[in-house]
Amino acid sequence: MRVDGTAYRTIWPAADGPAVEIIDQTKLPHSFETLRLTGLDDAAHAITAMQVRGAPLIGATAAYGLWLALRVDPSDVSLNRACETLIATRPTAVNLCWAVEAVRAAVAGLPPGERADAAFAKAGEICDADVAMNRAIGEHGLALFRELHAAKGGGPLNVLTHCNAGWLATVDWGTALAPIYMAHDAGLPVHVWVDETRPRNQGAALTAWELGRHGVPHTVIADNAGGLLMRQGRVDLCITGTDRVTARGDVANKIGTYLKALAARANGVPFHVALPGPTIDWSLSDGDAIPIEERAGREVSHIPGRTDDGEIRDVRITPPDSPVANPAFDVTPAELVDGFVTERGRCSASAEGLAALYPEHASAAAE
Amino acid sequence: MRVDGTAYRTIWPAADGPAVEIIDQTKLPHSFETLRLTGLDDAAHAITAMQVRGAPLIGATAAYGLWLALRVDPSDVSLNRACETLIATRPTAVNLCWAVEAVRAAVAGLPPGERADAAFAKAGEICDADVAMNRAIGEHGLALFRELHAAKGGGPLNVLTHCNAGWLATVDWGTALAPIYMAHDAGLPVHVWVDETRPRNQGAALTAWELGRHGVPHTVIADNAGGLLMRQGRVDLCITGTDRVTARGDVANKIGTYLKALAARANGVPFHVALPGPTIDWSLSDGDAIPIEERAGREVSHIPGRTDDGEIRDVRITPPDSPVANPAFDVTPAELVDGFVTERGRCSASAEGLAALYPEHASAAAE
Repeated sequence: MRVDGTAYRTIWPAADGPAVEIIDQTKLPHSFETLRLTGLDDAAHAITAMQVRGAPLIGATAAYGLWLALRVDPSDVSLNRACETLIATRPTAVNLCWAVEAVRAAVAGLPPGERADAAFAKAGEICDADVAMNRAIGEHGLALFRELHAAKGGGPLNVLTHCNAGWLATVDWGTALAPIYMAHDAGLPVHVWVDETRPRNQGAALTAWELGRHGVPHTVIADNAGGLLMRQGRVDLCITGTDRVTARGDVANKIGTYLKALAARANGVPFHVALPGPTIDWSLSDGDAIPIEERAGREVSHIPGRTDDGEIRDVRITPPDSPVANPAFDVTPAELVDGFVTERGRCSASAEGLAALYPEHASAAAE
Repeated sequence: MRVDGTAYRTIWPAADGPAVEIIDQTKLPHSFETLRLTGLDDAAHAITAMQVRGAPLIGATAAYGLWLALRVDPSDVSLNRACETLIATRPTAVNLCWAVEAVRAAVAGLPPGERADAAFAKAGEICDADVAMNRAIGEHGLALFRELHAAKGGGPLNVLTHCNAGWLATVDWGTALAPIYMAHDAGLPVHVWVDETRPRNQGAALTAWELGRHGVPHTVIADNAGGLLMRQGRVDLCITGTDRVTARGDVANKIGTYLKALAARANGVPFHVALPGPTIDWSLSDGDAIPIEERAGREVSHIPGRTDDGEIRDVRITPPDSPVANPAFDVTPAELVDGFVTERGRCSASAEGLAALYPEHASAAAE
């Protein structure tokens, strides 16, 4: 998407030599800095240090990391070592593993002299596939937005979102934000209520930043405010991304999503979830069976931000001896979700809805 | 309540001379400092600078402020000037106005030489009346806690609260926290989930601090986490305070309360509201008619905290050009509230329930 008029992806091959460039997301929203990754270690560090985040972008970064490793040493030993190094950067990231194995499969059978070029090509394919999937989600979501806007009969479409499911979490477009960008670019008036998304503030730091840079009207709110806004009729639609959707349509997403889904249902506000097909876990039916990651308490007790002097500092907001708990996501049961927006189209949040769009998986799941 | 073993109120006459002492609440939770107010200007500043906050405490501070003014000059001119000065400190605080007028009424008819002592006595009465009211709320709440704990059949009673309705907001005990302190002191095992309560973090800063200092087990959570915890069966009861309750039982309270009430209802968790009778607005039935205060955007865009060096700094967490909205409270409809805990006992959140406890007001409201 655009950053003050210039089109960007979150990762791209350098124009002037063997390197890839990324946006250093740890500096957002306070400064926009790009980084040049010139070797395997740079790529691994970018993932570990969360300079890149979001499953698709982590996968793409790892794929380019293999290219950078194979340029220096295309041997089997080097390939295997690079794969191990990259997979170890974020041990639980399924997409990372998938991308590394996809590149390995594409190059392992080739003579060493051809491996680097093949890895580069595969990394590019992985990026392009992500962009195409998100663009398709955006197009299907735009149709939904047009319907809701027509039904509203005037004024901007007020969309509430939680966390960051934008282009910064993917290679481009994002998932939940893809239809927002498409609507904005198509001249459909949209305004986005951005939940700040404590404790890591991905809404305030990332979603607000990317919407602002692309020129999309938006307003940052405390996570506590969405219920009131829905009660007041000031939200026309909620749309979020998801970390995992079960085969029956339960949605695991950033902590707090469930509260907004409850408020949406109580106030007749449509609640939709945008997802690419690979997010569906066909092996699982009951969302409450998903283990909830407990993250570091420091994310709750401390907040990083920018002082008036321009320094980035962490400040403590809790008493030093008060325990904290930090569950990272919650589960919204399918009954509270009005619909899914996928790269293949829209469907109900149900086993039947998902099976109709992904029959090949649904039949495998049923066996 | 106790601060590391020593009993405190939030305001008290100095033992060694004509002054009152307060806890500087702007320093919490990072340091515990008491301040000595020796004149009218000190008292007015303490209210304006929010060194004291919470309606009852603001009223008590103003009452002692009048005493300090009348000690220096007990004339009618001085009395009237002091009343005006104090009322102007927080123009919308109803309780402040009430306390100032109560002291004025108690002293205006007296000879100047007797006014200071009478003001001092009246201020003490105002404090003691607040403490008695909150103690009574605590006792009625404790009965509720005992019932729920007996029904649970074992383990600590897990209570979720939002914002700060503790002793720091009153002269002592607090409202929602009064039963928690009573339960803890009585040996009933309680554990409190403390919503941090963005944007002003009263939960993380004040509720966690006061519970910790009194020794009550508690855990600070992001406001987003309560829905998950209720879904997981880890909350036995929600209890909050309130800024205003309508005659039919709608509850205006800190932004985010409504979301927790929705989650409580969806998960069968009892949701109770603690309130002193004066909080009931008998002139109003529909909670959605209450105007919602929009506070400074800086409360959302910036967060104050303590750096690792021990400095208190404000840090910005949003992009500088992103608009923010900051509605200060929301309305929870009576249907979502399982009960009220008042100084006169418990009742249902309904016109009938409130009328039964406060017949003198209810009949006036009906006329």
